[in-house]
Amino acid sequence: MAKAQKTDRTIPRRLKGFRDITAADVFARDRMIAKIREVYERYGFVPLETPALEYVDVLGKYLPEADRPDGGIYAFQDEDNEWIALRYDLTAPLSRFVAMNLQDLPLPFRRYQVGPVYRVEKPGPDRFREFYQFDFDSVGTASMLADAECCMVMCDTLEALGINRGDYIVRVNDRKVLSGVLENVARRGEVPPQASLNILRSIDKLDRVGLDGVKGLLGLGRRDESGDFTPGVGLAPPQIDIVLHYLGIKAESRTVVCDDLERVVGDSQVGLEGVEELRRIDEALGGAGFDEDRVVIDPTVVRGLTYYTGPVFEAVLTFDIMDDKGVRRQFGSVFGGGRYDDLVERFTGQKIPATGSSIGVDRLLAALRVLGKINIDATTAAVLVTRLDRNLTAEYQKIAAELRSAGMNTELYVGKQGIGKQFKYASATGKTVAIVMGSDEINKGEVSIKDLRLGEELSKEVGPDRKKWLEEQPAQFSISRSKLVEAVNKVLGRYATR
Amino acid sequence: MAKAQKTDRTIPRRLKGFRDITAADVFARDRMIAKIREVYERYGFVPLETPALEYVDVLGKYLPEADRPDGGIYAFQDEDNEWIALRYDLTAPLSRFVAMNLQDLPLPFRRYQVGPVYRVEKPGPDRFREFYQFDFDSVGTASMLADAECCMVMCDTLEALGINRGDYIVRVNDRKVLSGVLENVARRGEVPPQASLNILRSIDKLDRVGLDGVKGLLGLGRRDESGDFTPGVGLAPPQIDIVLHYLGIKAESRTVVCDDLERVVGDSQVGLEGVEELRRIDEALGGAGFDEDRVVIDPTVVRGLTYYTGPVFEAVLTFDIMDDKGVRRQFGSVFGGGRYDDLVERFTGQKIPATGSSIGVDRLLAALRVLGKINIDATTAAVLVTRLDRNLTAEYQKIAAELRSAGMNTELYVGKQGIGKQFKYASATGKTVAIVMGSDEINKGEVSIKDLRLGEELSKEVGPDRKKWLEEQPAQFSISRSKLVEAVNKVLGRYATR
Repeated sequence: MAKAQKTDRTIPRRLKGFRDITAADVFARDRMIAKIREVYERYGFVPLETPALEYVDVLGKYLPEADRPDGGIYAFQDEDNEWIALRYDLTAPLSRFVAMNLQDLPLPFRRYQVGPVYRVEKPGPDRFREFYQFDFDSVGTASMLADAECCMVMCDTLEALGINRGDYIVRVNDRKVLSGVLENVARRGEVPPQASLNILRSIDKLDRVGLDGVKGLLGLGRRDESGDFTPGVGLAPPQIDIVLHYLGIKAESRTVVCDDLERVVGDSQVGLEGVEELRRIDEALGGAGFDEDRVVIDPTVVRGLTYYTGPVFEAVLTFDIMDDKGVRRQFGSVFGGGRYDDLVERFTGQKIPATGSSIGVDRLLAALRVLGKINIDATTAAVLVTRLDRNLTAEYQKIAAELRSAGMNTELYVGKQGIGKQFKYASATGKTVAIVMGSDEINKGEVSIKDLRLGEELSKEVGPDRKKWLEEQPAQFSISRSKLVEAVNKVLGRYATR
Repeated sequence: MAKAQKTDRTIPRRLKGFRDITAADVFARDRMIAKIREVYERYGFVPLETPALEYVDVLGKYLPEADRPDGGIYAFQDEDNEWIALRYDLTAPLSRFVAMNLQDLPLPFRRYQVGPVYRVEKPGPDRFREFYQFDFDSVGTASMLADAECCMVMCDTLEALGINRGDYIVRVNDRKVLSGVLENVARRGEVPPQASLNILRSIDKLDRVGLDGVKGLLGLGRRDESGDFTPGVGLAPPQIDIVLHYLGIKAESRTVVCDDLERVVGDSQVGLEGVEELRRIDEALGGAGFDEDRVVIDPTVVRGLTYYTGPVFEAVLTFDIMDDKGVRRQFGSVFGGGRYDDLVERFTGQKIPATGSSIGVDRLLAALRVLGKINIDATTAAVLVTRLDRNLTAEYQKIAAELRSAGMNTELYVGKQGIGKQFKYASATGKTVAIVMGSDEINKGEVSIKDLRLGEELSKEVGPDRKKWLEEQPAQFSISRSKLVEAVNKVLGRYATR
């Protein structure tokens, strides 16, 4: 229990790292998801929905920090004492689904799935323990066409969301190339146990710690600005040089990068396989017209999840933004994935190669918001029918029903406040129009319509033509009861095109 | 761990009571949710999304079977040893949200929320441990207008989903009336501890066990057909008679039922309050034109959740259906809710009355499926571009890109099977059209289009005009490469109106 209180009231509190998402944000996210879905479906992916809970051994331990005691997941025992957990991604459950349905499933099985996943991580401003992923995958194909297609879908998705070409880049690498480099490192001298994973993690930190930082992490360790010391992998300088030389490979042309990588991996069989995979991806991307302004080969890409076996890819936003607090920063990776040829095999014993990508819905939504690419003012609220005189409630109900029948979202006020507070309530809940009718109006067969947004709109910067037009509109007027629907529709129309 | 195997393969298995939802079902459910959302928004409700995990004490114990040791929920300790749980409904989290945001929230706060909830219940064919609820609530109003509105929204929602008036009924009761009856029972003699809750549970079983069954449950106990004995509440016969008399109240007119209830509750203050609430609801329903063909007052309604304090309501489907196995059954309650005036107060100490309803998305979807009100064949799949000749892959990619640009969902085959298997794959994944192009075609500047649905459609029962028209359509034909998009569009159009 949290802090005790004198009363036996329960303290209303939310788990740390979790959040409540209110109307405007739900709308924005849903619109974003709808756009993403359209692109995924355009490429022939169809939906699948797996449960939020799975057996722990079925999920496996593939998180970047899975060597932590709790494995970074929400795990607990069910009533049969079996260990179950909230999914930490959508890929492990997909592999379980394919393994269970292998007999009936046409391969490649191409599905998308959107939903929350759960990780026990240190929460931050844009880092939640419950967050949305939106994945697409092709299971049952070893073809690099599928990996190239992942990159293409990532580009098309970002552009469909309004991110301009040039404001993002998809970066591709191959875990087999990294394995080839590790083989060469091992040939040059002793390698400590667990070194492979730690070398990959060190490389993965390049963006944050820079090349010198990686050098430290590969060698004797690194002390950061705060004075904290991270122990190093313990490689010898000639070994470190191999990695640094590899990380230095950079060229605009994907073909040139492949040629350079081929030289670096030398005669490592797995390394050469990786380079060949990258060449196939380059070829498929070229065939579809996806050039280096959209997709590059970048040896520094690792991706954290440990289940990747071949190509890995990520999309990063390349522009700086100012966040809410005026701090300049980059959004970094918003979309990532790769090939995971062993995930189904761990269930079936049979090789079912697979590849796919996952978009970080929340982080990308935050980026779109900062970019102004998502309308966060959108609301479905339209009309409030006020209740000036409780005795006229049946008449108010009829008005509300008429407006609803005509397709307008209409709330009948069901609170107990007076008319002034009702207008405030209408504005606070985003209504455009308030309807008022007292006994005066009813005797005259009339009804009053109040435009709640006009004042606010007039204070905005709009073109002179629109301003003039807005100024001519009445903020409140009475009309014949029989013309109500038409008149409300017209007022709503004042803002419909915006 | 489950059954051990000789290999160290993991057994792919899903938690019992959970399910995977495949494409057609996801589409059907999403279309259903969109229709429900439209009705909720039409009444002025806006979305809110709370987390799946909450503190256990924040959720409270309100499930019908919450006196079970595990409380019927998925609860476990987090890394700080605090008890957390997956939400079992969307009302308790809403109350927590309102309590946390009381300063800034315009009241009544009217929100809808859709999402999975989790209960550790005995799984059944249509009973899952993870299931969707779609709630709407008005928090911060004591007005019976809000409760009447709940009933109206329930009616409008069911009709929007294609359920005809007369095929459902909304039944309303009031917990205060039930309390009044219990008061009268207590006045007639001794009442065992915990009797109130158990009397309500016995009444709640009326649909299943009949009036005689309830009589047994209120008295010495009841033996069911299987021979199982359920102990009774232990009431004396005159006490039981009060309950049975109450349960026998039935009339078409809501006013008449209220008059009868008023007599039964006698001078019980709380009972009279309950009757008065029902009269206010009747009045509001009448004002909006919702008569007894849609909403009735029914004294047998209890609703299981223990947080209800006043009006309770449920919508039941009134027709019999044949299920998949040819068994005749009723769907029963698909939509339910009530007033819960104390849920926010337990956090704030301040009275924040509230009322709302929850639709059981999965059960209703099952009903719509049986009724044929939901198209379960709908698919977003349209075109498969086959790969007859791997060397022509770049050309196939161009074709796929062209079709996508024209708005057609198009998959490029990325597997490794031959052309015959590719056609089978196209059909199995629901494609309408397959595109074929070999070196022959390419030399002639042509491409082949295969209609995969024509044969299937011809075998269906369709009108003679359509049959004749369909028979005249070519199942496969070649056209000039430049006319591809137009021609594929035309073939898809063969089925677009269906």
